[in-house]
Amino acid sequence: MKVYLIGAGPGDPGLLTIRGRDALAEADVVVYDYLASDTLLNYARPDAERIYVGKKAGNHTLSQSGINRLIVEKAKEGKIVARLKGGDPYIFGRGGEEAEELLDAGVPFEEVPGISSTIAGPAYAGIPLTHRSLASSVTLITGHENPDKAGSVHNWKALAASASTLVFVMGMKNLPDIARNLIAAGLPDDTPAALVHWGTTARHRSLVSTIGELRRLQWPMDSPIPRSLS
Amino acid sequence: MKVYLIGAGPGDPGLLTIRGRDALAEADVVVYDYLASDTLLNYARPDAERIYVGKKAGNHTLSQSGINRLIVEKAKEGKIVARLKGGDPYIFGRGGEEAEELLDAGVPFEEVPGISSTIAGPAYAGIPLTHRSLASSVTLITGHENPDKAGSVHNWKALAASASTLVFVMGMKNLPDIARNLIAAGLPDDTPAALVHWGTTARHRSLVSTIGELRRLQWPMDSPIPRSLS
Repeated sequence: MKVYLIGAGPGDPGLLTIRGRDALAEADVVVYDYLASDTLLNYARPDAERIYVGKKAGNHTLSQSGINRLIVEKAKEGKIVARLKGGDPYIFGRGGEEAEELLDAGVPFEEVPGISSTIAGPAYAGIPLTHRSLASSVTLITGHENPDKAGSVHNWKALAASASTLVFVMGMKNLPDIARNLIAAGLPDDTPAALVHWGTTARHRSLVSTIGELRRLQWPMDSPIPRSLS
Repeated sequence: MKVYLIGAGPGDPGLLTIRGRDALAEADVVVYDYLASDTLLNYARPDAERIYVGKKAGNHTLSQSGINRLIVEKAKEGKIVARLKGGDPYIFGRGGEEAEELLDAGVPFEEVPGISSTIAGPAYAGIPLTHRSLASSVTLITGHENPDKAGSVHNWKALAASASTLVFVMGMKNLPDIARNLIAAGLPDDTPAALVHWGTTARHRSLVSTIGELRRLQWPMDSPIPRSLS
């Protein structure tokens, strides 16, 4: 009986860790979300049970509590369960909630960190998030706030004043709001800003611009990034 | 002629990515800093040249500009160079500077992200940095500021007000100053805080406490974390 909470990384299957791959190979059951690449599932044994619990906004195959129950149930059957999650389990991955559930249920588990898309997406677009002479900190922020929370959870003034590089993840839909809030909080219009879509995958697109320009963009979340703003 | 800027991860050799391992195996020359594990160097070919350019505060084997020159020179000899750096090259890794140097020199390069100690250190100590009901953002901050910069580069007020989880990396020496600055900027004394030392390695130690208690700790940077504060 054991659960691995494994970070699958941002999309490029080569960004899975060696430890993540080994844990997958050991599993009797693989519980996975949407994955950018099937290569990862191929690391599991051919006879391992594969259960898709993919989540897309508003269209959950299983609720989070259903996922939690499934993992605990499979582990309590004496199985080794690999819970494969995009990015890093503990960075906007709800891995913390799954870990709490496993602790409560007395199921032993190990967390295997993954490469976060917040870091690798910009990197594949050629953008280091910190730089000795430019940025001494970086803030990773959900661009897709918990809709259960009252009002905005972000302190926009503090974000705008932080001198941090700011990375909003899953923020495409809220992009105009994010840009407007930052500018209203004091971030200059001409602050450099970039968009990265489908980072680290073959569908990767990116756009380097300013926060003022990005505020003017509006498109359905699934549309590609325009090649230029001209 | 090619350079890989490879993130070696935080210490546990299992946290190297598959792509990082493959790039190491391809290299003619491996240029590396201090590594928590020799396992990583064993992924290089037996005949690959291994060059240590390890940096410890105040005791650089090679200056950053010397490292930059070395990498460019080896690549221009037609070799495949693996530049192996702790953590992630673009998160406090000075990889951005090495990338600029390679661009200037016209040397083709690829960056291979690594697991950052800022994320995996806390994870191995059981601490998710974000949580749906507790923290919607996380800020990664150098605890070891560029000594060339005038004054403090951090906006302590913004950090204290951010509602982000704050992670200071390489901050052991400056811990009392960091804690004092945060409290002076308005962070309550009883804000939960943890220390992680040698995260993800066999020497891992961690301490869960409050920012008020951590302010009172002072020890030489190389000493172990006390087991408790009592």
